Formats: sequence, structure tokens, C-alpha cells
Amino acid sequence: MNFVRRLSTKTTASLDASKLKLNLTSSPKALPPADKLVFGKTFSNHMLIVDWTAEAGWGIPEIKPYGPFSMDPSSCVLHYAFECFEGQKAFRDASGNIRLFRPEKNMERLNKSADRICLPTFDIEQGVKLIEEFVKVEKDFVPQEKGYSLYLRPSIIGTQNSLGVSPPNSARLFVIASPVGPYYATGFKAVRLEATDSAVRAWPGGVGNRKLGANYAPCVKPQLDAAKRGFQQNLWLFEGYLTEVGTMNLFLVFQNADGKKELTTAPLDGTILEGITRLSILELARERLDPKEWDVTERKVHINEVMERAKKGELIEMFGAGTAAVVSPVKELNYHGEAIEVPLPKGKEAGPVTETVSKWISDIQYGIDDHPFCKVIA
Amino acid sequence: MNFVRRLSTKTTASLDASKLKLNLTSSPKALPPADKLVFGKTFSNHMLIVDWTAEAGWGIPEIKPYGPFSMDPSSCVLHYAFECFEGQKAFRDASGNIRLFRPEKNMERLNKSADRICLPTFDIEQGVKLIEEFVKVEKDFVPQEKGYSLYLRPSIIGTQNSLGVSPPNSARLFVIASPVGPYYATGFKAVRLEATDSAVRAWPGGVGNRKLGANYAPCVKPQLDAAKRGFQQNLWLFEGYLTEVGTMNLFLVFQNADGKKELTTAPLDGTILEGITRLSILELARERLDPKEWDVTERKVHINEVMERAKKGELIEMFGAGTAAVVSPVKELNYHGEAIEVPLPKGKEAGPVTETVSKWISDIQYGIDDHPFCKVIA
Repeated sequence: MNFVRRLSTKTTASLDASKLKLNLTSSPKALPPADKLVFGKTFSNHMLIVDWTAEAGWGIPEIKPYGPFSMDPSSCVLHYAFECFEGQKAFRDASGNIRLFRPEKNMERLNKSADRICLPTFDIEQGVKLIEEFVKVEKDFVPQEKGYSLYLRPSIIGTQNSLGVSPPNSARLFVIASPVGPYYATGFKAVRLEATDSAVRAWPGGVGNRKLGANYAPCVKPQLDAAKRGFQQNLWLFEGYLTEVGTMNLFLVFQNADGKKELTTAPLDGTILEGITRLSILELARERLDPKEWDVTERKVHINEVMERAKKGELIEMFGAGTAAVVSPVKELNYHGEAIEVPLPKGKEAGPVTETVSKWISDIQYGIDDHPFCKVIA
Repeated sequence: MNFVRRLSTKTTASLDASKLKLNLTSSPKALPPADKLVFGKTFSNHMLIVDWTAEAGWGIPEIKPYGPFSMDPSSCVLHYAFECFEGQKAFRDASGNIRLFRPEKNMERLNKSADRICLPTFDIEQGVKLIEEFVKVEKDFVPQEKGYSLYLRPSIIGTQNSLGVSPPNSARLFVIASPVGPYYATGFKAVRLEATDSAVRAWPGGVGNRKLGANYAPCVKPQLDAAKRGFQQNLWLFEGYLTEVGTMNLFLVFQNADGKKELTTAPLDGTILEGITRLSILELARERLDPKEWDVTERKVHINEVMERAKKGELIEMFGAGTAAVVSPVKELNYHGEAIEVPLPKGKEAGPVTETVSKWISDIQYGIDDHPFCKVIA
């Protein structure tokens, strides 16, 4: 194996959005009706592709008709999981404008993910520009309906054709887009989670804080096991502490005996994904919740604490937060067959805090609240 | 997300080697000369492919000309690392016969890996038969030279075109073959390893014992860092204990003050790959080493023990073992900048135990020792 190549100091081309080439389809499809959309199964007319080589750097970005890649069976992405991705969304506001939610945060995180597995990084601003250009081309695929959006999937994959385990000397950045509705088939309904400690998703010194393909396939079997027992998702415990759900971060709302409330989520200790919805909720909560009534914290919460405080009536709400699922109320956390019930107001699917937070995010995404998190791009 | 599909009890087709279809190339290439072979970069004329769907089960196996796959950009292998693989080798003995080294062990392990990430499993015997048929077709690509072999890479990838994180409803089993020489460019020379504790490869309850793509990409950056400091590979520590090298398992030889010797390697506690070369060495050592002089153990060895016993002169040999690298002598283990030297006999690249073990394996592989581990298939 020869790792020395990467030590070269030769100048290579940076990612440059101004070089973007458009090669548009002559037979565009139309956006299917909202009720026909299944998460991540319908795609828009085009894809954005930029190839990279260690020798030359980033090539010419191109938007071209959506279609298959030709991949050598020895391609390193198929063997060693040289792959990382993002999930972000474009929304249509009431005036028909298209808005992107904090795209620079996604590009920042994609760079961190790529760097961790020796895939090429890029200039964040150029990455955001390319995403914007792509969404402009695909703007007819951003649905009108509230709760719907155009889900964007930027990915970087290693494309070196070699079975040696080494940093890829070629890679591809690509973006595809899927018009989507609610992530859970159940819609905005409270979900039931199962706490998993028979398997471990991530650990200190591992890669659980990066959005790598490697973090996903190993999580599906425990999810499937939870699904067979009737749970929509599983919550990953680490040494008994609540971490994340795999597709979303988790928030809890406690109320102390003295009446003070706490909105809390797991800290960024390297074992959870650095969620952008998570960050946005924390930022908004610190700005908008009255500090005399509220503590907004990032701390380790043990499953025993959740059980004990639920018994005392101090656990008042729980919800998941992520790009795909947005804000998703939780009505039960099951641990070793024992249900920790989360109270829901009679006849409702979410408590008042969950509803408030959900509205904060959704109002920003759909332009009801014209907030700096969301930029009009078309 | 709908996980329920997998609960169906419908009967689907099993993997069936008797259905194998041959579609051979009309323009075969010849095996390049041994000195032109770089590990995993040259491939033989054909590939073996069997597609699977959740609905129908395993399809018709086909050996066809080596060539690119057409893959949708949303294919789940490119996003969520639904991929696992094996490394195994075919050897040419002195009489020109082709031998496979314990192929049933590879198929067993591939099944365990596939099962862990919800990819389809298969009948081990049918898998072995397919590998044998493939090697028969490619037998001219098994090099003559000692130290050379035809490296086989069976893989299973998820091919479902969807961004939902769920068990793939379609997959592909494929096998490609690369004629190879020594894994390290240095040949049969002692390597220097760096012990890594800044990053952690695997964790109890994780997937470090399965041959998943997910275990490889995250290991390359620490390897690269070690390479920049002059080390061929890094050794992964877990809470200070020696685990594995990422591309090979590690063996140590200690000599106690009373003269008794120990051949030891890390136990199968879920954090190391269940190496087939590792298993074979343990089995042969337990059979062939005199138990009055030797203890053959699988136990946790702490880096502090290695340092202390090296200082006392009790660390007498160290070597890596794996399919790609076979048996690879180690002359130094560096920990936080401090070199733990492993003595080598003057003018030699390996100590007597390493040489003996290496000869055991190599004699079986090349048919000098006609041992049940190696079956003549052509």
C-alpha cells in the first residue's frame, strides 16, 4: 500500500460553482401528486455531479439528466464504504418562493464527514452555490403542500478501482433530489421508540458524529427487531445514556418539583450526529424560552433517570428532531419490555412544547417567520 | 418506513450453483507477468454475479465478462453502506493444480456479515461450489510463482433504489478476482506498526467482528497518519488492549522467566475480525507445538504488558496474520512515540516462530503439505 501520494504539495483545482455546466433533459417528468410521494423513492429530472481526482482536484460541475452511474465492480465505495452524505430540504413558501434551510451547515458537515474518511473536501460557499443552482433547475419539484418539501441528498463517494485499503485517489460529489412528505407513514403522529442496549451504534473515538454510510447499515437490524415489536424506531443507548435515534436526535422535557422546566438533549460528545435541526432548536429555545422558567441543556441523561422521573410525573414531553422527520412527537419509550409513557394532551398527538418547537421550525421553513435560517433562493 | 415486508413467510428461491450460466468473453486477456501485479488493481477476465430480490429470492448465477455495473444514484449501497465482503485465495501447487484455502470458512463468515446488515444469506455449500466454478473458469489467472495467488473478492451489496433507511429489498452477490503477489510493497519484510488509541476501530456490541465495508473507510485516516510517520500499518487498541491491525490479526510470542513460551492473540470478544488465517494458526499451533514448552492462548494483552515484557526480554516475536498479508513479521510496535522493539535474528526478517508458522500456512496453501485445509479443485 502506498499512502505517500497524498503528501504531494501539487496545487489542484478547487470546487468552482462558476464553471457549472447545464445539460438539461429534453423529456422532463412532472412532479407527481403529493399523495403519491414515498420518502426517497421518486426523484427529480436531474442530478448534479462533480468528479474529483487526487491529481487534478475538482472537475467541472455538471447538472445533467438523472440516470445510472457506470461503476467498476472494484470501486472502493462498494467494498470499504467510502461514502458520506447529507440530507437537506428546499421549501416552497406561501408566495411560491423557494427557501433553503441553513444549507451552509450541511456543507460544513459534509466536509467534516468527507475529511474523516479521506474523501475530498471543498469550499463551503461553492458547495452552497451549487446546491442553490441545482434547486433552481429543479424548482418545479418543490411541492406546494404544507409538510412537503424537496429533499436534497448530496453525497461523496470514493470511486477508485482498487481493492487495496487506502485513501481513494478519485471520488464523486453528487446531488439528487426527491420530493417528499412526512417521513413516517403515520404522519405527524406520536411514535413509540424502543431503547436498544443489545447493540451499540457509536462510541467515543468512533465515527458516530459523522454522517457516514458506515453508521447506517449496522443500525437497521436492531431497528427491524424494534419494528417487529411495533416500534417505529429504536433509541440508541450508550452505557445506559440516551444518545440518538439513528434518523433523528432526541429531546426531553422535564418539569422539576419546583415548577422549573428543562428542555434537554444529548451533548456532542462524539457519539451522536451533530443535527442541524437539533442545533436550530437549541438556538431558538435559548433565544425564545423565558430563562426564569426554562433551562435549555445539553447533557447526558440516563435511562434510569427517565424511568424514575416518568414515575414521578416529571417527564412531560419527548420528541425527535431531524431533517427527514423534522419534529416528531414520542409517546412511549420502551426499555426491556417496560413502557415509559410520555403523557399526551387528550385527543392530541403532541404536547405544547413539542408543538411550539415544531411550529418554530416549520414557520421558518415555510417563510411564515422570515428568519435568517432560511434564505429565499428562487 | 415499512419494515413489515420482511416478515412475509413466502418461499423464495435459494442460491443454486447447478443453475450457473456461463457467458464467456470472446477476447480474453492473458495473466500479466508477476512483477507487474499490484494488489487488487489487475482483474481476471470474468466476474460471477447473482442477483437477489426479497420477492423472488436468489436468481440465476452467471459468470460473464468483467465489466461495470449500472447503478442508480439512489442505490442504498452508495448511501448506507449495505456492503460486506470476503478475501480468499486460490493457489497453484508445484504440480500445477489449483487449491482453495478453507473456502467454506469464508462463505460462513460472509453469511454472518450479510445477516448483520439485513442483506440476504445463502447456502454455504452452494456458495463454495460457485466459487470453485468461478476459479475453474479463471484458472489461467492463478500465478505460478511462490508467494503469488489469485485473490478472490466475493461481495454482497444492497441495490435497492431508495433513500429510506430500511432492509434492502434487492441485492447482488458478486465475485471478482485479482492475481496478486505480496500485500506489502516491501515483500516478506518485517513491518513497523503504530499503536492507535486516539481513534477506536470497534466496540463491544458494535460490528468490528463482521467483514463490513463500514469497518474500513473510518480506519484509513489513522492508518494514513501512521504512514506519514513511517509505519506500514497501525494496531488498534481498545482501552489499552491490543485488538487487530485492520487488515490482519496480531500474534505475540512471549517467553517466561521459566523458559515456557506463549503464542497469543486477541480473543473473539466481538471487537476483532474472526480471521481464518488466525483460526488456522491457532489450530495448527495447538496440534503441532509441544504443550510442555508452549501455551497457545487467546487472551487480552494490554499495551503496558507488552512494554514491560519487552523491557525484560520476554517479548520474543510478533507477527500479523490475514488472507491478504498471510504471515507478516513485525519488528517494532510504536506507542505514543516510544518504540517497543521486537528482536529479529541477525540478518533475518523474521524470528523462528514466525518463520515456522508462515511455513505451515504456505506449505498447505501451495500443496507441499497436502492438508485438509486446502482442497484441489482444478
